[in-house]
Amino acid sequence: MPSASPVLLRPDLEEVAARLRAVIGESAVIDDPAEAYAGDAAVRAPVGTRFLLVRPADTAGVQAVLRLAHETGTVVVPRGAGSGLSGGAVPADGAIVLSLERLTAIREIDLLDEVAVVEAGVITADLSAALAPHGVFYAPDPASARLSTIGGNIATNAGGLHCAKYGVTRESVLALEAVLPDGTLLRTGHRAIKGVTGLDLTQLLIGSEGTLAVVTAATVRIRPLPVARRTVLARFRTVGAAADGVGAISRSPVRPAATELLDASTLRDIDRSTGSDLARRDSAILLLELDGYGIEEQTADLTAVLAAAGAEVRAIEDESEAEHLWELRRSGRGARADLLRLGEDVAVPKSRLAEIFDEISAIGERHGVDTSAVAHAGDGNLHPCLALPRGEHDGEELPAPILAAADELVRAALALGGTISGEHGIGTAKRGWLDLELSSPSRDLQGRLKDAFDPHHLLNPGKAL
Amino acid sequence: MPSASPVLLRPDLEEVAARLRAVIGESAVIDDPAEAYAGDAAVRAPVGTRFLLVRPADTAGVQAVLRLAHETGTVVVPRGAGSGLSGGAVPADGAIVLSLERLTAIREIDLLDEVAVVEAGVITADLSAALAPHGVFYAPDPASARLSTIGGNIATNAGGLHCAKYGVTRESVLALEAVLPDGTLLRTGHRAIKGVTGLDLTQLLIGSEGTLAVVTAATVRIRPLPVARRTVLARFRTVGAAADGVGAISRSPVRPAATELLDASTLRDIDRSTGSDLARRDSAILLLELDGYGIEEQTADLTAVLAAAGAEVRAIEDESEAEHLWELRRSGRGARADLLRLGEDVAVPKSRLAEIFDEISAIGERHGVDTSAVAHAGDGNLHPCLALPRGEHDGEELPAPILAAADELVRAALALGGTISGEHGIGTAKRGWLDLELSSPSRDLQGRLKDAFDPHHLLNPGKAL
Repeated sequence: MPSASPVLLRPDLEEVAARLRAVIGESAVIDDPAEAYAGDAAVRAPVGTRFLLVRPADTAGVQAVLRLAHETGTVVVPRGAGSGLSGGAVPADGAIVLSLERLTAIREIDLLDEVAVVEAGVITADLSAALAPHGVFYAPDPASARLSTIGGNIATNAGGLHCAKYGVTRESVLALEAVLPDGTLLRTGHRAIKGVTGLDLTQLLIGSEGTLAVVTAATVRIRPLPVARRTVLARFRTVGAAADGVGAISRSPVRPAATELLDASTLRDIDRSTGSDLARRDSAILLLELDGYGIEEQTADLTAVLAAAGAEVRAIEDESEAEHLWELRRSGRGARADLLRLGEDVAVPKSRLAEIFDEISAIGERHGVDTSAVAHAGDGNLHPCLALPRGEHDGEELPAPILAAADELVRAALALGGTISGEHGIGTAKRGWLDLELSSPSRDLQGRLKDAFDPHHLLNPGKAL
Repeated sequence: MPSASPVLLRPDLEEVAARLRAVIGESAVIDDPAEAYAGDAAVRAPVGTRFLLVRPADTAGVQAVLRLAHETGTVVVPRGAGSGLSGGAVPADGAIVLSLERLTAIREIDLLDEVAVVEAGVITADLSAALAPHGVFYAPDPASARLSTIGGNIATNAGGLHCAKYGVTRESVLALEAVLPDGTLLRTGHRAIKGVTGLDLTQLLIGSEGTLAVVTAATVRIRPLPVARRTVLARFRTVGAAADGVGAISRSPVRPAATELLDASTLRDIDRSTGSDLARRDSAILLLELDGYGIEEQTADLTAVLAAAGAEVRAIEDESEAEHLWELRRSGRGARADLLRLGEDVAVPKSRLAEIFDEISAIGERHGVDTSAVAHAGDGNLHPCLALPRGEHDGEELPAPILAAADELVRAALALGGTISGEHGIGTAKRGWLDLELSSPSRDLQGRLKDAFDPHHLLNPGKAL
């Protein structure tokens, strides 16, 4: 992987660095950042990209950085843990990369108000760990929860496995503390669960990928841990039958907390990398989690619904077996040094799941690309994986057949009434497709909203919008 | 009540009327609107306010109206059912009042995608009635559901009794069809349950009280009707003890779908108007609804929690008795021709419920105003009622002591970390308090967002912002 560490700072960036050191301290300004800061988990900055890493310790430090950036006309790229998958935190040349990693205080946990006040740099799993002894949890659980930060989750409106029941990040955020591009502190929202005063700036900032303001802290909702949980495994002969099973659940009164669909290729990948025995010929799996009161009633209803839909269903009573299945789902396909892979993220109305799985297979065949897919099927969000053997394409970032297949995949999702990104965000990776989803009036409006927050376009330019 | 019917249209409004008739038809343009259109359920336009009522039949008609308003520089006031309580739909002088009441199509109910596509003029209860035969429901249930429209609910981000469990209107809207102030059609959001493409214009429009665009249709989430329901009645010696009961629920794993707190004065009012027997000396009531799976387990946990908190608790097995109690709660205090009343709407973090009830009593005593309050206690949203005998104040719109008490109430809610409006919106009624809640950077930003949508300030000027 090419290094993006700056060889020499441009003079103006050196001056910015000197002024920043005077304001927020010597150690918070790093002009030879580690390689890790040159990209996120999917996208790297071009070789030779020069940037300054700044790691303020608190909100006042973030304000100082933005104030100075504003005064000097320096571009700022906000950064959480760098676990994003769409390039939202990738450094721009000549930019200040503003890492929130030191804002790690959980300022407050209030069981009566059912909120926690957390700083942007808190790792999502660390919040969960802090809440668990109190019998409560923070619902959004992106697959990256052990790496990603609350701030990053808010920037991308992160999803995860439990969104159909508990909502995405947006539904768990009540209020934000954020810094505007000129350094002004902005507080939005309310600690009360309801509140309708003025335009909802909280909601507008969520999912804006650091293009409008830098979130420094959030008041998030917390919920009681479910009194019970039950994992259910349903095997289907085909992925289409599994998609029909999701439809059968929709027509029933039971709503699983998680409904994961794994296709045959995914199952084979998991078996290969973990030694598990999930795959069978032409099979697909729904891995489901029920939670809450009446777990036996829920299990009975769900298993009846899935059996009627033609599945071989098994409720997993043994907790360690259930935990093992979820671990297999999360750890996924395993590392494969022999493959070049692109992990995609689209969503469709969930009645179209069978069709998008058919499209994925057809696209793979057309381009000679191996395909597999998992879906958060309860909310129609798919993560297809497009892969080719590295051998013939070694040295290429992403081979043309994969890129062509990805393009067709995104267009297929749109044609089915879906979206080009279910939960990973647009970043730099998906900007080329924005016009396919957003109408010209919508893009114009978004541009004007950007201007309203950031008239000089200093904040994360070239991303998301 | 003074009539606001126009005596004579201003010439320019007459010309606008003529041009509108040519575009959307004779009968859709009314220049002597009925009295009802001169206000909402709480606020009347000043006597002599002249306006033109326009009732287009469809989205294209709404576009035509806004296009013409844009060309002629005519102010437009969007209007649902006029059931609002903060003046958001009150006509401005010289305005087109754009009623959405004819956009009443339920375009689609899709059980597999778990969405309905409904036009803005659909009465909320009519949507519920259309959904019920399919075994599904639309969760937001403002007390006005039998009168108010989906469009109005979206404009105010309406709440209701079940928000702590099911969320406010915002959480049930996936996509909008809206018309911008120049007549341009805008589609926002996605039919897929997840989607993070671009800034979330859907969320920004929700709760914007018709100041940014005119919503003509919405894609809303629908959910399966709960498999069971149970009403629980808990009596407390004091309203403070009832508030503590709410806190005890927060510390438990059970989450009622509705948690209504009624204070002693409210109970006496209900008894007086309905002949019921709810009030006892110094008592307060929590009226709760449980729903979903495991209803017996839920009931056992909830009654145990409330009994431990000192309540006399009764689970209501008889459905007609339960329905009667909810009807008493909804129909409320009854008409009282002898009183001048102001119904308020504030919210506080729910740990502060006991304090705000104390404040309400103290404020009432200071100003010689009768006070009572109900609360959607599960989300900290209160509706205090401030009343005076009409006798000595007859002819006054709202007597000074009530206004002074309302001012102190709003300030008290803010001092407790709350908000000036939990769910009714700002409209004209609460604009005077906006500066108390929103910081100057927030107000500035909101002004710039308004400009981004509506640079000529033609849409609902003088409201909300």
